[in-house]
Amino acid sequence: MIQIAVLGYGTVGSGVVEVIETNKADINKKAAEDLSVKYILDLRDFPGDPYADKVVHDYNIILNDPEVTVICETMGGTKPAYDFTKQALLQGKSVCTSNKELVAAHGPELIRIARENHCNYLFEASVGGGIPIIRPLNYSLTAEKIDGITGILNGTTNYILTKMDKEGAGFEEVLKEAQDKGYAERNPEADVEGYDACRKIAILSSLMSGQNVRYEDIYTEGITKITAADFKYAKQMDKSIKLLAMSRDTEKGFFAMVAPFMISREHPLYSVNGVFNAVYVHGNMLGDSMYYGRGAGKLPTASAVVSDVVDCARHQGKTIMCFWDEENVNVADISNAERKFFVRVRADQREAVMAAFGSLAEVNVGIVKEFAFMTQVMSEKEFHEKIEQAGGCLNRIRIMA
Amino acid sequence: MIQIAVLGYGTVGSGVVEVIETNKADINKKAAEDLSVKYILDLRDFPGDPYADKVVHDYNIILNDPEVTVICETMGGTKPAYDFTKQALLQGKSVCTSNKELVAAHGPELIRIARENHCNYLFEASVGGGIPIIRPLNYSLTAEKIDGITGILNGTTNYILTKMDKEGAGFEEVLKEAQDKGYAERNPEADVEGYDACRKIAILSSLMSGQNVRYEDIYTEGITKITAADFKYAKQMDKSIKLLAMSRDTEKGFFAMVAPFMISREHPLYSVNGVFNAVYVHGNMLGDSMYYGRGAGKLPTASAVVSDVVDCARHQGKTIMCFWDEENVNVADISNAERKFFVRVRADQREAVMAAFGSLAEVNVGIVKEFAFMTQVMSEKEFHEKIEQAGGCLNRIRIMA
Repeated sequence: MIQIAVLGYGTVGSGVVEVIETNKADINKKAAEDLSVKYILDLRDFPGDPYADKVVHDYNIILNDPEVTVICETMGGTKPAYDFTKQALLQGKSVCTSNKELVAAHGPELIRIARENHCNYLFEASVGGGIPIIRPLNYSLTAEKIDGITGILNGTTNYILTKMDKEGAGFEEVLKEAQDKGYAERNPEADVEGYDACRKIAILSSLMSGQNVRYEDIYTEGITKITAADFKYAKQMDKSIKLLAMSRDTEKGFFAMVAPFMISREHPLYSVNGVFNAVYVHGNMLGDSMYYGRGAGKLPTASAVVSDVVDCARHQGKTIMCFWDEENVNVADISNAERKFFVRVRADQREAVMAAFGSLAEVNVGIVKEFAFMTQVMSEKEFHEKIEQAGGCLNRIRIMA
Repeated sequence: MIQIAVLGYGTVGSGVVEVIETNKADINKKAAEDLSVKYILDLRDFPGDPYADKVVHDYNIILNDPEVTVICETMGGTKPAYDFTKQALLQGKSVCTSNKELVAAHGPELIRIARENHCNYLFEASVGGGIPIIRPLNYSLTAEKIDGITGILNGTTNYILTKMDKEGAGFEEVLKEAQDKGYAERNPEADVEGYDACRKIAILSSLMSGQNVRYEDIYTEGITKITAADFKYAKQMDKSIKLLAMSRDTEKGFFAMVAPFMISREHPLYSVNGVFNAVYVHGNMLGDSMYYGRGAGKLPTASAVVSDVVDCARHQGKTIMCFWDEENVNVADISNAERKFFVRVRADQREAVMAAFGSLAEVNVGIVKEFAFMTQVMSEKEFHEKIEQAGGCLNRIRIMA
């Protein structure tokens, strides 16, 4: 019998309890032991809830109970999740988490502490919700040198951009609708400014490199400046606009960034719509592979947490291998990264643009007061210099190669 | 040091040696031991090959060498692969294979023998080439009750169908071109008749159910009857035609089949083109997820074999859990499976068709001598009765819900 404590009885925490209950027979078979939720830590009480008698308010009850060997941390945030996790690992209790903020901020330290105490710190649910991606990177693609990851890692922004694409609506309008439906939070900053995707690509990039990619070092740009007009141009070019989180291990350095990109219809990520997420991975032997599914939501995310619990049950007293050292990766400045750019300028800038860029491809959707074009491949630095020279722009969107 | 023997120095076998050599540093780190190819079994000699001195012709040299703990079986076919595999497992040597015929025919027995001898029989490369799919099913989706799998599992037929779709070409013409390019074999039967996809869905279905789905019990229909005209109709309906291998665990029984299906543009499998493969999995908590990548080819397939070797290195003396019992699943007759059908009949059958089917949706692409339509949802049995009553058909293609 594996006795579990769930920290935080919110959306994901209650999902963990529900998944364990609903799929009891299958899960216990796969864990080769029965899983049982012994405690639920929450500040609140839940009178009438079938698990009301499991709820405790004092974390020490859990910490001091030697029967509890696995803890599901579904609180989110770094305080007090960091301290709680560390205390558990130091006592040899494994921790399975959906908390990307904590994993991105303290992952390698917590993984080391787990290793030193012969237990596990597992975080399948921290990226891509229910999509298996952490385990494929750690267990499956072990014969690959992975040199590129590109993900649609935030369901809220993908929902908004998909709506804007399909319905021609503006950002503010769709955001409001998403908030009303509960797909976006009242304070949407973490999603729409790309901070959430940034944490997630920091985690994936770290697993790709084996060292620590600090999320603070990742250039991050959100979707708030994307307009209905941008989608008109995208459609004209048979492209869509997606918030991509990517990292590339190249000869010129290790690049990582989050930004809206125009992406062609032929690319598998083009068809990843609505609240779905996908991670596109490039390895030197396998080439491209993709992992697709629900990137958020109560049960998908909880399912990933419980799969980590099953892994803990299968590896009691043993630490599962995970290569994520505490040494920081030297993330290269994106100014040297090269790509094409889609640019919109005022109509009266046409000559200045021609002078600055020389060769370009005009795109016309009948908006009379402006001039839009796609550049040749150039570095971010070069682009900035040229567009300054041409008098700035109304908007510019990077183009996915 | 993990000493390896490779059985069969053909495409995949030589790929295994190449992957181990190319990604040595990364692989050895992930295996926590150095991997070394000690023997290559082949009937031929390879003078001048850097591994020429590893080549042996007598399997007993490998069997009797206690240093060899992992064997990569990349011979294909069941003879002598079955005997070789069994002998190795009985001696406690793990076997990693790309051989779908053998896994489909004798998987559960070989898994049991491995378990009884504290070693492993691993087969990530047997389905989907380099796409991680076996491990996600066995290790990742452990909190799910999986009730549906739909795959594009054969690269040759997907290449042919994609070409027919994009270029409007006929089956024979594209097949010949694929043969000239080496994408299809001179004897293409195993691919174009669906037998290869059948073996692969038998393996996935068995892992889904935990018991044995016999490939002989799976209704299998190839792509040889698909014509350029069918694609015209498909395009008119904003669909494509794909060879799908699927299984469904439903209240009405366990269904499994391989057949060409019309599939809508909105479905993620619609965009899986050319030699790419994808597996679409439905779980009761996660909902839909998809795994996409190169389903064949030397290095992708070899990469999957080597990832199995790494897993063996990580689990020496221990059998990794795999639920695939020898008991056979009672595969339901597809005559009770329900769906819509696309049907082409002669123009003069219109009235008989109307009488038999009642409600239907006509599809017109300007082929004058025929009448084409989409039926309502009905069972296979009901469809056969109605179409007999209407005087048969020119062609009929199932429609993916």
